[in-house]
Amino acid sequence: MRIHSHEIYLNLHKQVDASRTLGYGEFKFLWDKIKKLVAVYKKHDVDKSGTIDSMELRNATGDAGFQLNNRLLDLIIARYADDKLQMELDDFITSLIRLEVMFRVFQILDNKEKTGSITLNLQQWLLLTIC
Amino acid sequence: MRIHSHEIYLNLHKQVDASRTLGYGEFKFLWDKIKKLVAVYKKHDVDKSGTIDSMELRNATGDAGFQLNNRLLDLIIARYADDKLQMELDDFITSLIRLEVMFRVFQILDNKEKTGSITLNLQQWLLLTIC
Repeated sequence: MRIHSHEIYLNLHKQVDASRTLGYGEFKFLWDKIKKLVAVYKKHDVDKSGTIDSMELRNATGDAGFQLNNRLLDLIIARYADDKLQMELDDFITSLIRLEVMFRVFQILDNKEKTGSITLNLQQWLLLTIC
Repeated sequence: MRIHSHEIYLNLHKQVDASRTLGYGEFKFLWDKIKKLVAVYKKHDVDKSGTIDSMELRNATGDAGFQLNNRLLDLIIARYADDKLQMELDDFITSLIRLEVMFRVFQILDNKEKTGSITLNLQQWLLLTIC
């Protein structure tokens, strides 16, 4: 089974707040985000090979609004790029949408106290990470 | 790109403890776990359809050693089963290996104080959930 970016997004939103309904605004946000990522990807695929390499990825993520440290960027490459460290468009979108979603999940969970950290019990951890 | 169970396992282990090396014992554990899941799946695919339904899944997960509450089981079905709530062998293994990995990650993170909860900052959260 293929994991689709929008499914991850929807599932996680449901988990974070079961009572929340996803309206037009949320879908439009996701759609606009994907459109932006496609444009960024095409811009940074400078040799028009249909893939971007790890250096192009670093620039592309920055251009897409993500300021990633080396450890996180290395992990994304290890997880989503192929054996030659090349990343296709679909994987680029999937990885950055997931990153965006996880960032937003953290913000929602940290919303009340704004401590910069979140505390989860086992049940919460499994519900949020099984997706 | 396909997400393989063993890749999830390896990546998460690397994240939880970067200094940890994966020896024969770890690989054998994973291999034995997959073999067990295959056997459980085949046992519970009572009509030999090549898929199991949500009721068969409930029994199969229990037989595989997972005591899941309804919310977690519903989430796994929503995430890994198809539109007809049928689950193929590969998705069965992927979902339960991921569940096992996330359970072990929680245990490792909660290892020192055994409080039953874990506290993560944004960086830790992203590194653990981007996989």
